[in-house]
Amino acid sequence: MLETAAQRDDGPLLARVRDRIEAFASQYPARFAIVVFAVLNIIWTLLFMTPLATRGDEPPASFIDALFTAVSVICVTGLATVDMATHWSPFGNALVLVGVQVGGIGVLTLASLLGMTVARRLGLKQRLMAAGDTNPSRVRKGVVKEGQAIRLGDVGGLLKIIALSVLTIEAVLILLLLPRILLEGVPFWDALYQSVYYAFMSFTNSGFIPTVEGLTPYATDPWFLGVIMLGVFMGALGFPVYFVLLRNLKHPRLWSLHVKLTLFGSLGLFVAGGLAYLVLELGNADSWGDADFGQQLLQSLFMSTMSRSGGFATHDLSELNNSSLLVTDMLMFIGGGSASTAGGVKVTTLMILFLAAIAEARGRKSMEAFGRRIPSDVLRLAVSVVLWGATIVAASTILLLQITHEPLDYVLFDVISAFATCGLSTGFTHGDLPWAAKAVLAATMFVGRIGSVTLAAALAASQTQQLFTRPEERPIVG
Amino acid sequence: MLETAAQRDDGPLLARVRDRIEAFASQYPARFAIVVFAVLNIIWTLLFMTPLATRGDEPPASFIDALFTAVSVICVTGLATVDMATHWSPFGNALVLVGVQVGGIGVLTLASLLGMTVARRLGLKQRLMAAGDTNPSRVRKGVVKEGQAIRLGDVGGLLKIIALSVLTIEAVLILLLLPRILLEGVPFWDALYQSVYYAFMSFTNSGFIPTVEGLTPYATDPWFLGVIMLGVFMGALGFPVYFVLLRNLKHPRLWSLHVKLTLFGSLGLFVAGGLAYLVLELGNADSWGDADFGQQLLQSLFMSTMSRSGGFATHDLSELNNSSLLVTDMLMFIGGGSASTAGGVKVTTLMILFLAAIAEARGRKSMEAFGRRIPSDVLRLAVSVVLWGATIVAASTILLLQITHEPLDYVLFDVISAFATCGLSTGFTHGDLPWAAKAVLAATMFVGRIGSVTLAAALAASQTQQLFTRPEERPIVG
Ligand SMILES: [K+]
Ligand SMILES: [K+]
Repeated sequence: MLETAAQRDDGPLLARVRDRIEAFASQYPARFAIVVFAVLNIIWTLLFMTPLATRGDEPPASFIDALFTAVSVICVTGLATVDMATHWSPFGNALVLVGVQVGGIGVLTLASLLGMTVARRLGLKQRLMAAGDTNPSRVRKGVVKEGQAIRLGDVGGLLKIIALSVLTIEAVLILLLLPRILLEGVPFWDALYQSVYYAFMSFTNSGFIPTVEGLTPYATDPWFLGVIMLGVFMGALGFPVYFVLLRNLKHPRLWSLHVKLTLFGSLGLFVAGGLAYLVLELGNADSWGDADFGQQLLQSLFMSTMSRSGGFATHDLSELNNSSLLVTDMLMFIGGGSASTAGGVKVTTLMILFLAAIAEARGRKSMEAFGRRIPSDVLRLAVSVVLWGATIVAASTILLLQITHEPLDYVLFDVISAFATCGLSTGFTHGDLPWAAKAVLAATMFVGRIGSVTLAAALAASQTQQLFTRPEERPIVG
Repeated sequence: MLETAAQRDDGPLLARVRDRIEAFASQYPARFAIVVFAVLNIIWTLLFMTPLATRGDEPPASFIDALFTAVSVICVTGLATVDMATHWSPFGNALVLVGVQVGGIGVLTLASLLGMTVARRLGLKQRLMAAGDTNPSRVRKGVVKEGQAIRLGDVGGLLKIIALSVLTIEAVLILLLLPRILLEGVPFWDALYQSVYYAFMSFTNSGFIPTVEGLTPYATDPWFLGVIMLGVFMGALGFPVYFVLLRNLKHPRLWSLHVKLTLFGSLGLFVAGGLAYLVLELGNADSWGDADFGQQLLQSLFMSTMSRSGGFATHDLSELNNSSLLVTDMLMFIGGGSASTAGGVKVTTLMILFLAAIAEARGRKSMEAFGRRIPSDVLRLAVSVVLWGATIVAASTILLLQITHEPLDYVLFDVISAFATCGLSTGFTHGDLPWAAKAVLAATMFVGRIGSVTLAAALAASQTQQLFTRPEERPIVG
């Protein structure tokens, strides 16, 4: 025993640092995630501020623009206060590409890591086990044994698996995009760069665009838009879903409840959103409302996919009906799947609320879905996440309304887009915004990205024992 | 036994009708409430359409304006598509005054009635018992015995108590307002009419105004505005709160949890709302932002009180900063106390959500407040009520944006005002709105008023037994 302790103290510096980090990460997983994310954002801000990052003819980025871009990149949001296609040098563009991968995959990993370290003390390993489990009958109750918990050291292996599958999917997307871009007459190396850029941006749900002309050349192209939609949709499902699908794609009976809820919710929102845009934009000549039906359908479904975190747009969103903008606000706020590159309060969170209302209406004791009973403490977590999200959005919107006096239609849209790291914009977010407004938006992006993941983990971790029971009393509700 | 049945069949028609109604009311309390409310609205619509209701020089009200006014009056909302001060004859004005009393007190009674009939099958008599109970130690668990349930016949007595206390409070308000109006040089009978009108409108949280000049003569008067605020604030507390306060005003230790939550929440929102308006309107010369501090404080607190269902306004709300409008949206959506004349999702509902988040953050097993434990099924009810409210507001706003293309700032404001029967308006609601827009707003008022009361009762009533238990599984949230 004593020997081991001495060994540790005398060990190489790196090992000791790792031990320290490991201790911190496992004791305060939520704070650890926040620190890692904050450090990433600071590094990227400093790098974007160097003269090396901007093009030769541009002055170095100001602090606030560098900060905004860094946060937008690391949080895979896609909002911009500078022209992303012309402002940055090749080094700056490399920062963007690496940043979205680190930010996108990093959150995936951190989320899983958090789920696991938290699990150690709580038996909430179930959270991930249930989601990644291949055999529904193996779903457990109660506290998981200490020995089953995964330590920081094991995360390396997990990261490898995630990175490998992410890069594989992105490679497929590149292969699907490259011929289409070449067909447009773009030289090979430019086309390769653009297809890598689009593949990364769609799968990580970032939504930045590599060229000045943006999506214009492909704005009506089913192939190009279809591939982008596929990348965004898959990226928004989340790691626990891939994990199950990779192993049991052909055996839906073995899918976990989390997978079924996420797939059902995502497809449902995809179709419902598409229908809403189709109906609301019908006849609007400023968007796609007077195109032929096939185009209307394509654009509506594209918009529906991009709302829930993709962030690409084929049209000037300020030209859409403001009813469509409100629908987009709602879709963005919901966002994608848990532990995914998408933002928002998450599909399953919303579904838990509706399942609770359904159970209440049917007079059932528990929430139920796909033949499974959902424990009622999950509802409390879902309520906390939504309440926290609504509070952030409300506070940020009030501040920005007060700073800019711009219409609520546009301010609310860009705030929710920032919160849910969606990146769509009505034009409210631009370079001439006051310093304070950019800072509020950057803070909203940061809190929005780090929040729902760490909040859920932090809340789940703070279980305290209570030795007495208070008398019960029932207030009137509604 | 046989004799009794025969006696019933041969009894007077009235008694048989009463029996039928009683059976329907106790079996389907929620449907009963909806039918009563719908019938009231139809009667008032027809009456408002008669030539007798409009002034001699005005044409009879159109169907849609009569419907809108009827719904606005019966639901004590206060929105108007005609000039309420000039459009109606003395008979029309009498309809308005009687309507708000029937609507305001009617809902109080119906809500209590529902709480009690529902209780019979559910043990949810606790809901009202707990709220009206004078002795916290008497709080019960489990199902209340059949014999304790209150039948429709008992409601007459309850209605008498409510009507008596309502009329007493309104009489006090009249006595406080009359001298101030006389001081303005208004002839005695006009002044009496106006003070009755204002007293009714403030205590029932209706917010209609009897004169063309509106609140202008008293727009800066602390006495007049103070009395109106008092009336609105008391009206918004709700019957279960008066019930306890009347009996134990001086013994806060005996107050029920519902009373404490409602008072704490109402005062908290009053102060927080006032502070928000004070800060956000500071320096806005178009509202009260450049008045002296006393006036700024008075106007901010007045606005804070009126937002949560009063509906009176001293200023043109479209001149307020749109940050203030969003704050108002939030306050209106929350609304007043349960079983009160105020609308919204109710103060306790919101507090349950926050108590759930606090319990989650502190890692407690149950929600707690004022030394009491709140059962977790209350959270499910609260989530259902808020989800239902948000869905109504979202659907109505999307429809009205699509119909009118007006800015979201104004449309959302008037929709929430209609939903929460608040009656404040930015000017979006006016006589020249398209037919469809008026219909959507009227439907929103009706659903908003009848909804949270009957929804809570209906949901609580639909308890079904389940004889099997499904396997438990835990999806990832956030
Ligand atoms: K994005
Ligand atoms: K009102």
